[in-house]
This record gives sequence, C-alpha cells and structure tokens, in this order.
Amino acid sequence: MTMLDPNAEPRGGTDLSAGLGRTVWVIAEGYIPGTSTGPEPAMLSHETACMLNTGDADAHVEITVYFSDADPIGPYRVTVPARRTLHQRFNDLTDPQPVPRDTDYASVIVSDVPIVVQHTRLDSRQAANALLSTVAFPADGAA
Amino acid sequence: MTMLDPNAEPRGGTDLSAGLGRTVWVIAEGYIPGTSTGPEPAMLSHETACMLNTGDADAHVEITVYFSDADPIGPYRVTVPARRTLHQRFNDLTDPQPVPRDTDYASVIVSDVPIVVQHTRLDSRQAANALLSTVAFPADGAA
Amino acid sequence: MTMLDPNAEPRGGTDLSAGLGRTVWVIAEGYIPGTSTGPEPAMLSHETACMLNTGDADAHVEITVYFSDADPIGPYRVTVPARRTLHQRFNDLTDPQPVPRDTDYASVIVSDVPIVVQHTRLDSRQAANALLSTVAFPADGAA
Amino acid sequence: MTMLDPNAEPRGGTDLSAGLGRTVWVIAEGYIPGTSTGPEPAMLSHETACMLNTGDADAHVEITVYFSDADPIGPYRVTVPARRTLHQRFNDLTDPQPVPRDTDYASVIVSDVPIVVQHTRLDSRQAANALLSTVAFPADGAA
Repeated sequence: MTMLDPNAEPRGGTDLSAGLGRTVWVIAEGYIPGTSTGPEPAMLSHETACMLNTGDADAHVEITVYFSDADPIGPYRVTVPARRTLHQRFNDLTDPQPVPRDTDYASVIVSDVPIVVQHTRLDSRQAANALLSTVAFPADGAA
Repeated sequence: MTMLDPNAEPRGGTDLSAGLGRTVWVIAEGYIPGTSTGPEPAMLSHETACMLNTGDADAHVEITVYFSDADPIGPYRVTVPARRTLHQRFNDLTDPQPVPRDTDYASVIVSDVPIVVQHTRLDSRQAANALLSTVAFPADGAA
Repeated sequence: MTMLDPNAEPRGGTDLSAGLGRTVWVIAEGYIPGTSTGPEPAMLSHETACMLNTGDADAHVEITVYFSDADPIGPYRVTVPARRTLHQRFNDLTDPQPVPRDTDYASVIVSDVPIVVQHTRLDSRQAANALLSTVAFPADGAA
Repeated sequence: MTMLDPNAEPRGGTDLSAGLGRTVWVIAEGYIPGTSTGPEPAMLSHETACMLNTGDADAHVEITVYFSDADPIGPYRVTVPARRTLHQRFNDLTDPQPVPRDTDYASVIVSDVPIVVQHTRLDSRQAANALLSTVAFPADGAA
C-alpha cells in the first residue's frame, strides 16, 4: 500500500487535503425498484449517492428526501471520514425511517465541509441490468 | 413520518426553503420510442424530467419542445408544489398536444422560482431495458 | 401544431430566442462500435451529439475529432437552424472523412451562436442495448 | 487524413490549441467488477477516465484513488499528449499497485494543463452489458 504524503507539495499547488467540491448537492431523480433479479447484494437494485471527501476533516452529511405527494423526510445523517469515499445506498437508510420502494423521490445533500457527489442507480428488475450515473447538481451559490 | 421543521436553523446556514437551483434548464436529448416490452406502466418506455422544488413557493413551470424539422410546441404548463418533486413523463404531456413518438426532440424548462432538473430515459424496446440519466444544463446566466 | 409566439413576453423575462447555452463544448468520450444487433437504423449502434439552438439565428457548427494516436480531423461542418434541434450521429459524418469505427476518440464542438450539447450513445453490440447520455462540458470561459 | 492547421484563425476566436478545460477533476463513483461476460478486451468490464487535451503542450496527469476504509493510493501518472485523447482504463493502472476489484473507490485527476475528463463504465457481469457515462466534476476554483 502506497500512502500519499499529506505534507507533500502537490503538483501545481493543488492541495487536495483542503477538500474539493461543494457543500450542497441535489439529486432530482430517485426511485428504488421493489423487485430485483440476480445474486444479492451486488445485483440488488439500488440507488447510491457516491460521496468523496478529499479533505483532512470528517464530513458530517445530512440527506433530506423529497416526495411528490408527502412532506420531506430527514435529515438522514452519515459521516464521510477524512480522505475517504462513502458509497451510500438509499436502500440502507433507516433512520428516521426507510426510503419507500416504488416511489418517486429526490434528495438534497448538505455537508459541513466540501465534498463531491455522484448519483448511480443499478436497476435489476429484468434479466439485464441497467446502470445510470450522473454528477449531482452543486447548488451552493446558485440558489 | 418525520417532518422537517421549516423554521429550524439549517446546518451551515443552508436554507433549503429559499429554493435551490436555477430557473432555466435545457435537455438537448429527447426521444420517445414508439414501442415497448415489459409490464406497463413501470416498464413503458418513457422520457422523464425529474424536477425538485425545495422552496416554500410553488414552481410554475413552462416546457417548450423543439424539433429538427418543425416549429417548437408549447408551452406545456406544470406545477411543482412547494417542497415536492415532480417526475414528469413527456409521454403524459397532452396540452397543447402529445409529444410525437419516434421523433427527435429537445426541451427547455423555465420556472418562476429556482428548481433542479434531471433527465431520465427508460428504453424498453428490447427485452433488456436501458436507462440513462443526466442533470439538465442550467442555462440562466449563460445565454 | 401550436406555434410559440416569438414576440410574446416570456415568463420571468427569459428570452429563449436570444439563444441559450454556450459556444464551445467538449465530449471526451467517443467510440463507435463496429458491429450491431437489432433492426437498423434505430437500433444501429451510434454516437450522437444532440444540439439545441433556441435562438433566432442559425448556428454554424464546427466539430473537431481527436484521437489517441493520430492528428485530429476536422472541421466537420453542420448547421443547426434557428429554433431547431439537430441530433447528429457521428456515424453519419463523412466530410472530410468518416469517423473510424472501433477507435477511441473525443470531440470539440464550436458554434458561432450559443447552443446546448448533450452526448448520447446507443450500443447494440449485444442482444440487449445500452444507452448512455451526459451533457457535454461547456468550455468557453473555462480554458 | 485531413490535419487541422494549428495556425489557422479559429471561428469566433476560439483557440483550441490553448487547451480547453480544467486542471482538477473528481469522479466520486468507481467500481471494477471482478467478473465479466463476452469477448475480451472490448467486452471486459472496465472503468475508464476519458481525457482530452486540445492544447499544444503534453498534459502530465496524476490520479489519486480513494477508498471507503483504507488510505488513498497514488499518484498514478499518465501523459495525455498534445492534441490527443487518452481513454485510460482503471483496470490497466498498475503502478504503484493495481486498483482492487469489487471495491468501491473514487478518484481525483490533477493535470498541469487544462484537460476535459469524462467517466465511463462498461459493466458486463451479466449477459447484457450496461454502460454509464458522465462528465467528471471540475473542482478547481470550487474547493
């Protein structure tokens, strides 16, 4: 295992340990299918918020989930440790309550330090899986 | 159901109720296949504009659809209520007229308050479905 | 057919006819598979640059294609008429020469008026098709 | 082969040879499946960072890979020659060590000159392949 030297002078003066990204992210698309095919858990249908924290401080993250015909739920609280990535499945969020299946939703992700968020869905309802992924929309400073 | 307290002090001073996002969004890709496989309606081929309104005011949205060889159609009018998401299928737009099938199109989405728009397509023309999704292009201030 | 009134006062002062978007776009991913399955032309594997010109003036577009081990080719010239979309398949570009198959490439799209560009690929090499799509990277002002 | 004239006056004053893009890019999603179906190498499951360097100077690129429960690895060093694209498979990175399979990761890409980065995954674990692609997040100036 080759560790990065956190005290090394980065190329071009780019200091990754200061934390790359933004503090507010929006994923307008969300849907957890209620059924799956294929071996679990890798092939279980899931929605994932992939978060990267390049900084030296842990990121305390609050996720709020919005619906089409009900009040928002949240915040769900997760931590992305310093210099770590967290690929958080919405399927696994349980507190304050599980995210309902077969229901359209959207989410807002707020962090106390800069992070980068990418949204991925594996849909295994049919024999062939479908994948989608897109960078979330960085909303700080754009509201 | 745990409701968010709209009067609570948000983390880091981020006030979601002020409305995150932009007011003009562009989806340059659009195509509704004329045929589908699989159980409807979940597996019906569809194009969707996923819109999130985190603010306290309803969003009045106008969608204009552009074509390769005909004048644009619109506006289609939809409302995204305060603190709600709307996953609007282009298949379901009927006024002023249905969006033609098997035809290339593009769309512009204009809202009177900030929203976030993500574009998703489920293509079920063949036995295995394909999914795509991408954040729409925020065009206000870039025209 | 309901035409938009180009002289109408747009909601929120958004004048789509001024032309939304940017003038320089980059698609770093490109690959045209050499083989396909399924009925042509809808199911022929293809790479597409979906371009939307909301403005009142025709967009004169120049596409330059870059490779991993050869000099760039171009410009390919296409026109996106005023208030029209053009979903240009890279498969169909022939002048100055066809885009080679089974070859990694990337492309830069420069327009004389603002447009929006989205990149889509249908990959039908196997029985089940795969779709991808993403908004191109707007590079003007970011160089 | 039609070469571009690097001394030609570009349309609208856009000088591609100055180098389009940014110098810091983030891909928060990463996962190399451990198994594949279909003919190799085209159909081998892979994660790719598609990089385009439109400029006249070679781009010296450093890739750092982050994990959920281990320290980051890197930098991996690659060069994107002037006026070339490089579609770098994470599968093929070996120095300082291969990227582990079946493991969530994320990556940061730092270049000494502007480039554009797009992220693509081909997932061929099941009979039908899945593709995803998205422009990476440009993080310079946003940290």
